[in-house]
Amino acid sequence: MASTFGQLFRITTWGESHGGGVGVVVDGCPPRLKLSEADIQPDLDRRRPGQSKIVSPRKESDTVQILSGTFEGKTLGTPICLWVKNTDARPEAYAEMKAKFRPSHADFTCFAKYGIRNWQGGGRASARETVGRVAAGAIAKKILRERFGVETLAYVKQVQKIIADVNPDQVKFRDVESNIIRCPDRKTAEKMIRLVEKMRKAGDTVGGVVEGIARGVPAGWGEPVFDKLEADLAKAMLSLPASKAFEIGSGFGGILLTGRQHNDPFRARRGKVFTTTNFSGGIQGGISNGQTIFFRVAFKPVATVMHPQDTVDVHFHNTTLKGRGRHDPCVLPRAVPMVEAMTALVLVDHALRQQAQCG
Amino acid sequence: MASTFGQLFRITTWGESHGGGVGVVVDGCPPRLKLSEADIQPDLDRRRPGQSKIVSPRKESDTVQILSGTFEGKTLGTPICLWVKNTDARPEAYAEMKAKFRPSHADFTCFAKYGIRNWQGGGRASARETVGRVAAGAIAKKILRERFGVETLAYVKQVQKIIADVNPDQVKFRDVESNIIRCPDRKTAEKMIRLVEKMRKAGDTVGGVVEGIARGVPAGWGEPVFDKLEADLAKAMLSLPASKAFEIGSGFGGILLTGRQHNDPFRARRGKVFTTTNFSGGIQGGISNGQTIFFRVAFKPVATVMHPQDTVDVHFHNTTLKGRGRHDPCVLPRAVPMVEAMTALVLVDHALRQQAQCG
Amino acid sequence: MASTFGQLFRITTWGESHGGGVGVVVDGCPPRLKLSEADIQPDLDRRRPGQSKIVSPRKESDTVQILSGTFEGKTLGTPICLWVKNTDARPEAYAEMKAKFRPSHADFTCFAKYGIRNWQGGGRASARETVGRVAAGAIAKKILRERFGVETLAYVKQVQKIIADVNPDQVKFRDVESNIIRCPDRKTAEKMIRLVEKMRKAGDTVGGVVEGIARGVPAGWGEPVFDKLEADLAKAMLSLPASKAFEIGSGFGGILLTGRQHNDPFRARRGKVFTTTNFSGGIQGGISNGQTIFFRVAFKPVATVMHPQDTVDVHFHNTTLKGRGRHDPCVLPRAVPMVEAMTALVLVDHALRQQAQCG
Amino acid sequence: MASTFGQLFRITTWGESHGGGVGVVVDGCPPRLKLSEADIQPDLDRRRPGQSKIVSPRKESDTVQILSGTFEGKTLGTPICLWVKNTDARPEAYAEMKAKFRPSHADFTCFAKYGIRNWQGGGRASARETVGRVAAGAIAKKILRERFGVETLAYVKQVQKIIADVNPDQVKFRDVESNIIRCPDRKTAEKMIRLVEKMRKAGDTVGGVVEGIARGVPAGWGEPVFDKLEADLAKAMLSLPASKAFEIGSGFGGILLTGRQHNDPFRARRGKVFTTTNFSGGIQGGISNGQTIFFRVAFKPVATVMHPQDTVDVHFHNTTLKGRGRHDPCVLPRAVPMVEAMTALVLVDHALRQQAQCG
Repeated sequence: MASTFGQLFRITTWGESHGGGVGVVVDGCPPRLKLSEADIQPDLDRRRPGQSKIVSPRKESDTVQILSGTFEGKTLGTPICLWVKNTDARPEAYAEMKAKFRPSHADFTCFAKYGIRNWQGGGRASARETVGRVAAGAIAKKILRERFGVETLAYVKQVQKIIADVNPDQVKFRDVESNIIRCPDRKTAEKMIRLVEKMRKAGDTVGGVVEGIARGVPAGWGEPVFDKLEADLAKAMLSLPASKAFEIGSGFGGILLTGRQHNDPFRARRGKVFTTTNFSGGIQGGISNGQTIFFRVAFKPVATVMHPQDTVDVHFHNTTLKGRGRHDPCVLPRAVPMVEAMTALVLVDHALRQQAQCG
Repeated sequence: MASTFGQLFRITTWGESHGGGVGVVVDGCPPRLKLSEADIQPDLDRRRPGQSKIVSPRKESDTVQILSGTFEGKTLGTPICLWVKNTDARPEAYAEMKAKFRPSHADFTCFAKYGIRNWQGGGRASARETVGRVAAGAIAKKILRERFGVETLAYVKQVQKIIADVNPDQVKFRDVESNIIRCPDRKTAEKMIRLVEKMRKAGDTVGGVVEGIARGVPAGWGEPVFDKLEADLAKAMLSLPASKAFEIGSGFGGILLTGRQHNDPFRARRGKVFTTTNFSGGIQGGISNGQTIFFRVAFKPVATVMHPQDTVDVHFHNTTLKGRGRHDPCVLPRAVPMVEAMTALVLVDHALRQQAQCG
Repeated sequence: MASTFGQLFRITTWGESHGGGVGVVVDGCPPRLKLSEADIQPDLDRRRPGQSKIVSPRKESDTVQILSGTFEGKTLGTPICLWVKNTDARPEAYAEMKAKFRPSHADFTCFAKYGIRNWQGGGRASARETVGRVAAGAIAKKILRERFGVETLAYVKQVQKIIADVNPDQVKFRDVESNIIRCPDRKTAEKMIRLVEKMRKAGDTVGGVVEGIARGVPAGWGEPVFDKLEADLAKAMLSLPASKAFEIGSGFGGILLTGRQHNDPFRARRGKVFTTTNFSGGIQGGISNGQTIFFRVAFKPVATVMHPQDTVDVHFHNTTLKGRGRHDPCVLPRAVPMVEAMTALVLVDHALRQQAQCG
Repeated sequence: MASTFGQLFRITTWGESHGGGVGVVVDGCPPRLKLSEADIQPDLDRRRPGQSKIVSPRKESDTVQILSGTFEGKTLGTPICLWVKNTDARPEAYAEMKAKFRPSHADFTCFAKYGIRNWQGGGRASARETVGRVAAGAIAKKILRERFGVETLAYVKQVQKIIADVNPDQVKFRDVESNIIRCPDRKTAEKMIRLVEKMRKAGDTVGGVVEGIARGVPAGWGEPVFDKLEADLAKAMLSLPASKAFEIGSGFGGILLTGRQHNDPFRARRGKVFTTTNFSGGIQGGISNGQTIFFRVAFKPVATVMHPQDTVDVHFHNTTLKGRGRHDPCVLPRAVPMVEAMTALVLVDHALRQQAQCG
């Protein structure tokens, strides 16, 4: 099940960065949901390279086609296959990669695993694989919004040392989309953009933190043991390319507090229970408690830099390698729709699981 | 599959903190492995309450019985059921919990989910559920050690602000076990122990960080997309009670570096490839690269404190609740075997998956 | 997942015919279902050896204990572990089996697979493994009955050449239980019993057919492709020890008809759709159509006979083996509760799946 | 997992008979297997309509494209997406189906399940869905042949009352393919063809039996409990459109024998164990014993006939429906490659499972 995610709302992504295209099969989608390519394309546009001056300049339109699972504009309840053709394959750009392993990429480890690799790009480890996730995530977001009243959102919280000030309970989608770095704190966004541009010019790259949130999740989603909501979110986020860390609610910072300080007191008002603080990040014992869910994901600086670096060739001899042509100085703006997609995929899966077991 | 973990080496835990006991069924274990209770009990002893003055004083011997899956001291390849009876059930200690939800516990969320809960303890959300994980993990560790030459280890890296200095490439099991906090840096360990004792006396609790490592993992374990090795580790760790964060290799700290600084250069010596730094934490693109795997897990301060706290009762009226009798000031020493167990379960599963596909 | 059955109502059986006992973990059971041992024991009594003169005389009370998953007489929604201790282990009865493989048993194939086997009985291939299935099936039957108004039933339809006349739409449980062969056609039942007794005295064995039915299943359960309701039933039935064949509705006999004869005409009355014949057996295209579901399962004659038979020993030398002591002349009366259990497990799983996706 | 089959060699089919096409994603395929469209197309040609005068005259070339998972003619170990475009969609041919449910088709049950259906053909219940299975099966067959020395084969054993005489141990592929009904017993094949032609002219249809075999399977494949080899084969076969029954080895016929007659004696020669009869059909206790595996599958007469039949419309009013234009008198010749494909998919999955656990 290497390429499948989810138990009841299951997605299977397929495709390499170079070849016939990339896609996803969504199995378990509820029937009678209005769905067309227009519901999916906007998120793919937020994910694609070339969307602004601070991301990878690869030019692909990433136009999605629904190959199955809908009829007269509605889902049938059967597998939905979504396909995006590859159009910008330039094998010559990768010639050197045939002979050498790029440092901190998956070239060496894929070869160690399979004894073969598609050296024309990153194969399955390429960020291009996330096309399928984002496309499937668009469907998941639609279901959450229309059938469960749940909103999922993500934004850039930090670029290197520059940290934004954002309120997870109030931030809006249009604020996130108001600038090319996708940080809703506009002043900080400008600083972030300047830093990324500086890095791009220096042929170097920079990482940061994306914060993901979900509002309107009712109390009761998630499982008490292995499939805790935060455990599935952690897996979802660590499965994104370049991610290195995940924290929910208070996260690593919470260990500076004592139990008395860290506990979230319950209060009730008009028959509704809430907490007066939210160090838990909306999840307690693996199950949502009705408060806003929020978490942070760290993305390392992109590995491809425009400077010579020590590495080995496929014959295991020492050599050096220098990125050439194109270079993506910061993955964060494009990681935002990926985080949203994975969040929605986790939540819709647990919504269906809750419906199955507890009716 | 709420209570099942793993694809090929699958464990299903069962049991509540109060009831007939807790246990685990391990399915997919290779046949002809020497196995007796003596292989499992030591890790359960490291996990159990009452083992030292700085952990929960609950008194349970946690004696494991193998109910199935072995014959004449060897595994049969069939499901291994392990059972630990409950002996220290004291329902009267929980009487107040029948009426009130404990803050930052799973009482409220479990009730919201199921409409029923075992109020005599934490039910499935209780740390007692981890008995099954640790027991199964002992088997996984044995397979890794004997069949794959892989060593898994964990230790306390940080308690509140006190941080230990430990070298993941060289730390030894006996150093971890040399003190009751399970920190191999002995001087720092003493400070940690003093802090935990102070907290216990104050009726308060404290959190921290456990570092987990795996040495000897060959290049090639893990999957390139959803089931990345770090993604499965993240899920495994965030499924542990009280955990709030996970980072692999450079983690959150890595975002302060640029790509040039953060990349791990490959070098080769005598036909063997290695990296000269290890910001990747032994995993690249979801697949092990042959270097030491290391990661950190944050555990929040234990929620039960000996002070009155605001909460609601089961009728959703405001009230207060104060912990009484027993209290666990710090989960970290007992979290160490849990982290080891989950690490081993993830790795052995991927070892078998690699054997299945790439054979 | 060798020992797990079901997607949402999942059971994992464990245990060998000789060892600490046999059992099952049921994961995914809806919460707040009234459940005690008294709901489960009657079906185990129908399954156990020694219940009449025409079945295996092994003496085991097969008393079930609920180890987890209930509280104050109701299910918690958490894993239910059921355990039946082994009491009649007589290793000496199996001494010869240590050295020789029994013909048409799983001794040789288990050894070929695992390189080890528990020769004290049939290990996992023993009919004793079905204790867990029947126990879990009792829960499934209760859910179907109380929450979905569905009744599941099975009975002996044929013993060797003796065929009973039974109407699947009207047969009642008390008619099935009115005799020791479990055939609701009483006259035929007497003939069957006489044949089985004759076989027992001759040290030989006899097989036959069990018919399984489900009444009250609403239209819409099942999946259109791989997890067709009849496909899951076929797998469930062929997973029972000694079963060799499965047919739904018209089955093998249906191929003697032409399409015109075989099609089931739809009719409607007061807004309700039904078919005027039921060659489909209540399932069309993998999905229930609201008519009675019925199918037949063939069980071969039990392999252990009281006569010397050619076989090989564990050193692969030719030898002979003769059953001794006990001998089960006919598996059919005990297969009836097994067929019922597996039917219920398939149906409740699909009920929950339907609730998840289309609910 | 409604559209996914297999644990380790997993296929997910997608697509409706009318829409963007049909396809399959194969996940878990071993790397470095030579693979091109030329390995797959021949089996699709054996499956497609219009191949002879005795099958459905629908005209589709069913040309397969590999969209992912291969590089320079070899598998990468990553998901293989195979796609066959729809070309013969003629919605007008289905206009009447918009308003009426066809008897003994899945029209009514699909609507009952999902509340929506693609009335332009059979949707997922259409035989067209099997394109993906047959394509994936061609890969499975190649792996079995090249890496495990296993041969899978199927042929028509019976059409209505006409039964062929075939020896499962010796029948050859070229004999199967020597005539359009795919029965290796040529004399009987002629009679079968005449019967089917007669039925076609009469606007009626006829069913029969396909026998499937696997030769060269080593002892030890399969699981002892739920995932018995025969259980997975039964599920695979009953998941094929129009199948109604499955029997392995002696099947229903075996119940006429006593245990003494039915048991397969073991013998050994030069260190190799075999059985002198094969009532078991090559599987004992769910695990292969090294003998030829053989089984039979019953397919009902095709439901679409050229005569008016009673049915109901979508408003649940009584009406009649008559097939028009095209009509497939017998599914058997096209079912042969489907049975082969499903057999190979089951076997390769168990081969990888055996490699994982016991390898």
